[in-house]
Amino acid sequence: MMAHRIYNFNPGPAALPLCVLEEIQQDLLDFSGSGMSITEISHRSKPFDDVINDAVARTKRLLGLDDKFQVLFLQGGASMQFAMIPMNFLAENSSADYVDTGTWSSKAIKEAEIQGKAINVVASSADKNYSYIPRDIKFNEGAAFVHLTSNNTIKGTGWAELPDTNGVPIICDMSSDIMSKPIEAQKLGLIYAGAQKNVGPAGVCLVVIRQDLLDLVPESVPTMLRYDTYAAKNSLYNTPPCFAIYTVDLVLKWLEETVGGLAKMAALNQKKAALLYDLMDAAGFYRTTAETDSRSLMNITFRLPNEDLEQQFVRQAQQNGLGGLKGHRSVGGCRASLYNAVALEAVEALVDFMKTFETQNG
Amino acid sequence: MMAHRIYNFNPGPAALPLCVLEEIQQDLLDFSGSGMSITEISHRSKPFDDVINDAVARTKRLLGLDDKFQVLFLQGGASMQFAMIPMNFLAENSSADYVDTGTWSSKAIKEAEIQGKAINVVASSADKNYSYIPRDIKFNEGAAFVHLTSNNTIKGTGWAELPDTNGVPIICDMSSDIMSKPIEAQKLGLIYAGAQKNVGPAGVCLVVIRQDLLDLVPESVPTMLRYDTYAAKNSLYNTPPCFAIYTVDLVLKWLEETVGGLAKMAALNQKKAALLYDLMDAAGFYRTTAETDSRSLMNITFRLPNEDLEQQFVRQAQQNGLGGLKGHRSVGGCRASLYNAVALEAVEALVDFMKTFETQNG
Repeated sequence: MMAHRIYNFNPGPAALPLCVLEEIQQDLLDFSGSGMSITEISHRSKPFDDVINDAVARTKRLLGLDDKFQVLFLQGGASMQFAMIPMNFLAENSSADYVDTGTWSSKAIKEAEIQGKAINVVASSADKNYSYIPRDIKFNEGAAFVHLTSNNTIKGTGWAELPDTNGVPIICDMSSDIMSKPIEAQKLGLIYAGAQKNVGPAGVCLVVIRQDLLDLVPESVPTMLRYDTYAAKNSLYNTPPCFAIYTVDLVLKWLEETVGGLAKMAALNQKKAALLYDLMDAAGFYRTTAETDSRSLMNITFRLPNEDLEQQFVRQAQQNGLGGLKGHRSVGGCRASLYNAVALEAVEALVDFMKTFETQNG
Repeated sequence: MMAHRIYNFNPGPAALPLCVLEEIQQDLLDFSGSGMSITEISHRSKPFDDVINDAVARTKRLLGLDDKFQVLFLQGGASMQFAMIPMNFLAENSSADYVDTGTWSSKAIKEAEIQGKAINVVASSADKNYSYIPRDIKFNEGAAFVHLTSNNTIKGTGWAELPDTNGVPIICDMSSDIMSKPIEAQKLGLIYAGAQKNVGPAGVCLVVIRQDLLDLVPESVPTMLRYDTYAAKNSLYNTPPCFAIYTVDLVLKWLEETVGGLAKMAALNQKKAALLYDLMDAAGFYRTTAETDSRSLMNITFRLPNEDLEQQFVRQAQQNGLGGLKGHRSVGGCRASLYNAVALEAVEALVDFMKTFETQNG
């Protein structure tokens, strides 16, 4: 029997490729001939070693990383990274630059402040409700790092390209656009991404770190909060979230072998987003909330003429098999998240529904 | 087609009840009629709220906890708890008592020391290679808490009952015996357990906390490392490890509805362990490593006459569909982990194999 499935525009946890879910389902009682589930095998066994090594190798190939970088799998989500980053890389007498582009950037800043670390917020788009990405930022030359959020899930904005920081390494929260397009590795010191938007289920955070940053970690940092603990043991210092890493590996395999890599993924993501932005630009019924040159390709935030219509829109969409379109509770409105696993077909179905809804209510 | 399955004596990640795995498999593409996988649904949706609330309620019922206690789900495994416990509960001018019963206790002690916290190791069984549980311990009356490891996975020892600490709350690492028997809640301030032994897959840590302990948490602790963050938001401050919590809930349902609660589970666990210990006590071929009154019911560690025979034993057992019997790499020898989901039938098959092996090699 075919499973009942809807088009899933959730902001995260979010859609996964159907072929990935089917492979998990198929192998759930007996992973790789072990006679055990992937949830039951030892993290120190050959079958699991193959999984984590494959996930690392695929990440490096997909992102075009050289041997200066290491790929790690941590727990606690991006929110734990907000605390770990200043803890690991801001010793006394050093400071960092942060750019504030919305909720998640603000939380990262707050976690550095709780620890009493020296940081400078060098730019912010708070003045216009975070509807744009700041330009022409003056970064501090002596900063240990620059912290950015590459895509802002709640406000629907994203950096089209990373800024020039005069060689200061960028630490970038890529939770909502990791693997959605090729990256500018030469500008980056560390990237991190909660997996549950573009690369897997909730419960694992993908981290890519330039190895020279590991030398900065103070001795006083607890073992499980040190990046070098994970780097020294291929993320196997203690039991990792095996099922989540396994699922990430399957998603990366799909990206490489079915989609054909990040350039192709990016082209498809451009096409998907254009379908929606073009519809909204053509008439006044749906209004995007992000400034044109700052638009996210992953999270398209928009408003309807009034809140009643927005509620009706979300409800009717759900009834038509289009889920997850409600805006974040902190900002209201509507949002369509078009992560990698959201197929073109799903976006086309959404556009059709939006046109019909506009005709009936415009 | 029936899946190929072996008897799984892994120390963790470990066996899960087959009915749990089958339910996950069955519902993987469409959870609760949502048209989405459990890995794709929002952690702020009604279906997931039902999951986490059910897991909390079942934990409280199974452990017999009153409203003084709260049930939380964290990430990072028990190893992250080693760091969080002193960070949250040991302000300046306070100290805690730790009992050292082996590898995991020692790691917990080390993490308190890294942070420069005041702790006293009030008892240790290091003098006899951690083969016993210390008795007649003199605890400090003014201690903020007493830290214990209730079951020692690597050394094969366990506390038959928790010590009397004169009212000082016990903080207990129950990673390897949580839900294996009823607990003494009135002695406990906090219990924590990496799920991957007795209650689920790797990637979530079950925490039960007595609410008055939350008042001790200093303001300087980062958000994601504070127990009160999780307590205030029903473990939903940020995206939790949804799949792992869902699986824990199914295991708890199995414990309540199929096994019939912890008293029945404990009786079965006693019976399983007795089968092995009786075999070993009856002859000299297999030697248990733990002192008789300190034996674990979960992890039965034993030696054969020599290391060649041990290797042969583990290899032949694997060939006979009995997996995971190798001792921890730090101690060698053999180990059978008999967690809740390891059926009596599996232990009987192991006993049969051990008798045959002894006949052939004894």
